[in-house]
Amino acid sequence: MAKGIAEVPGITCGVARAGIKKTAKPQERPDLLVVVTEEPAEFAAVYTTNDVKAAPVKVSMELSGKVSGIVANSGNANACTGERGIKDALEMASLASQLTGKGRFLVASTGVIGEPLPMDRVRTGIAQAVANLGKAQGEEPARAIMTTDIFPKLAFKESSGFVVGGIAKGAGMIDPAMATMLSFVATDAKVPKELLQRALKEAVEVTFNAITVDGDMSTNDCVFLLSTGKSGVEITEENYSLFKVALTEVLEKLAYQIVKDGEGATKVIRVVVEGAESPQQARSVARKVALSPLVKTAVFGNDPNWGRVLAAAGSAGAGIVEEQTELYFGSYLLFKGGRAEFSEEAVSNYMKESQEVVIRLNLNLGSFSFTYLTCDLTYDYVRINAEYRT
Amino acid sequence: MAKGIAEVPGITCGVARAGIKKTAKPQERPDLLVVVTEEPAEFAAVYTTNDVKAAPVKVSMELSGKVSGIVANSGNANACTGERGIKDALEMASLASQLTGKGRFLVASTGVIGEPLPMDRVRTGIAQAVANLGKAQGEEPARAIMTTDIFPKLAFKESSGFVVGGIAKGAGMIDPAMATMLSFVATDAKVPKELLQRALKEAVEVTFNAITVDGDMSTNDCVFLLSTGKSGVEITEENYSLFKVALTEVLEKLAYQIVKDGEGATKVIRVVVEGAESPQQARSVARKVALSPLVKTAVFGNDPNWGRVLAAAGSAGAGIVEEQTELYFGSYLLFKGGRAEFSEEAVSNYMKESQEVVIRLNLNLGSFSFTYLTCDLTYDYVRINAEYRT
Repeated sequence: MAKGIAEVPGITCGVARAGIKKTAKPQERPDLLVVVTEEPAEFAAVYTTNDVKAAPVKVSMELSGKVSGIVANSGNANACTGERGIKDALEMASLASQLTGKGRFLVASTGVIGEPLPMDRVRTGIAQAVANLGKAQGEEPARAIMTTDIFPKLAFKESSGFVVGGIAKGAGMIDPAMATMLSFVATDAKVPKELLQRALKEAVEVTFNAITVDGDMSTNDCVFLLSTGKSGVEITEENYSLFKVALTEVLEKLAYQIVKDGEGATKVIRVVVEGAESPQQARSVARKVALSPLVKTAVFGNDPNWGRVLAAAGSAGAGIVEEQTELYFGSYLLFKGGRAEFSEEAVSNYMKESQEVVIRLNLNLGSFSFTYLTCDLTYDYVRINAEYRT
Repeated sequence: MAKGIAEVPGITCGVARAGIKKTAKPQERPDLLVVVTEEPAEFAAVYTTNDVKAAPVKVSMELSGKVSGIVANSGNANACTGERGIKDALEMASLASQLTGKGRFLVASTGVIGEPLPMDRVRTGIAQAVANLGKAQGEEPARAIMTTDIFPKLAFKESSGFVVGGIAKGAGMIDPAMATMLSFVATDAKVPKELLQRALKEAVEVTFNAITVDGDMSTNDCVFLLSTGKSGVEITEENYSLFKVALTEVLEKLAYQIVKDGEGATKVIRVVVEGAESPQQARSVARKVALSPLVKTAVFGNDPNWGRVLAAAGSAGAGIVEEQTELYFGSYLLFKGGRAEFSEEAVSNYMKESQEVVIRLNLNLGSFSFTYLTCDLTYDYVRINAEYRT
């Protein structure tokens, strides 16, 4: 069985089929998740930077100190729902508290924007999820937060005496000028609040903040990281990097799964920019290429359209020099010294046969690099998003 | 007959079917355009800000003083073509000069990136276009610069004693952090160079720089404005605004046609942001909404998905306040005071029946406004761009 957040010592999960999404058949999929910590746990969080924040984000942002867990639902984002939304998010948190007999809860929601939560169903769902605590394992908690996701996303890492495990959801509205989508991660290492927040911020920067599906930023994005301390391993400045490496590996795997499950995606695109004169240059060029609909549709069509890649790279205005730039698709060199020369057939075949297409730009201006992940843009992206509500 | 650049006194146009695009049947459509001024003319220009600039852009940017016209081709962008590309662009310009017996020419290309120009065909084409000078009228010059465009784009305006007429091309790779796509405009007013450049810059800012199809920035974009002076009307600081208004109206019409012809588009989307506390805020919010693939697919699906609009508006990070913001689709109020209330059916019908969907946000924070034009995102956008070369 694949491991996720439920396999972290000190964590118990319960889910319920509450039927929150109007059109859902309740039996289809769980849509309510309660994550409980044995003892009150330190936590760190990264939230969307959108001006329009969903009610659960506003409510969770108010929390400090320790928490006893997370309550989350899919099928309804509780976003743009005014004062009633805030009241509903607060009720979700306090209901989870009361029914578990524990302390305060973080709260998160994902799904359709702008419809009030069907609180009758949410209340019943939370009660059922609490009653089922301990039964949800492996993929089950990840399933409860899926919306247009096709597969559940989870990752787990054993390190030196401690583990990190997490789940995530996200397929559309994925963009990384912020914490992206929902992800709940826990560790049984004992991490002081300050180090926990620092590790989360640093790890998010190179994982969730380095992926894009469609450039849209959600109102509901948050990443929660809980430290149960159950392993007894204490994280200090000395072994901080050990913890950060393990956390980054887990978030990397979750981020990869999100891109792989990008709405309508048939391929992952890994955009690697090397030889940049600054980290900012590397990042901004990689981001522009990863965001380009023309690059993304070309990959869908197995078209080694290197010109679109160069045009997108140049549009960052980051000072790339055409004559210095080398462009590779996989191991094939397409463009160097200001001109292109390669076998269209060979590169197109490479694209056809690859689940992950690697687009690598060497700017030959310095020694910095950055990697961005995205996916191709397909008919299904349009279908999914044109039909989402109607 | 619709009027364009050929109807401006002092301007003559010739086109040819040169068969520049590899897969083109030469008889299909003209692909070579020569625009000639009776006397050397003042000109103004705005170019792409992409780091990767096509050879014709680099060559045209070197010109100062007066010019005798424009030579342009479609079917091949002459971009990312190294030194040979520069040589070819220079040859196009000098060939047009020689064959017309005139002064220097601006040069522009549009089409596939990264393939060398088939110069044999280009040379023959320029000779034919020069031989045909005067025959290309109305839509004909605009047809010669089309690529994935479905219809030719032209506009004409009579003002006080002078006229402004122009053509444009552009359907994909349209993004406005710069001069967008190709547009050639002429006036028979006599405009000093400094005023000509100022008017062009100011008019581009609210027209071509306020549209987006896919957020991609081209290597080839340029707008050329020629002043033949043929009307004898002199433009000075006193009547400058007269000229600017006429020019802006022509560019506005061309910009609208580009969006209407957006790759795969079925509808124009007009994003109006009002009540902003600064012009920058209005612009950045409007731009984010216009760029959002989720908003664009929702419009394609006739889905009044106001939540996506608010999420996109908020993602600008420009300081909008959810509770203050009002959102309208056409004349329908969808969201106000932090909550949504409207007839889904009525608004969806409005969307279905409209060729142009107006999305209007009143931020209620100040008195500035900005309007952005875009189009919906459809299956055909993906089809056109996945199949473009292969």
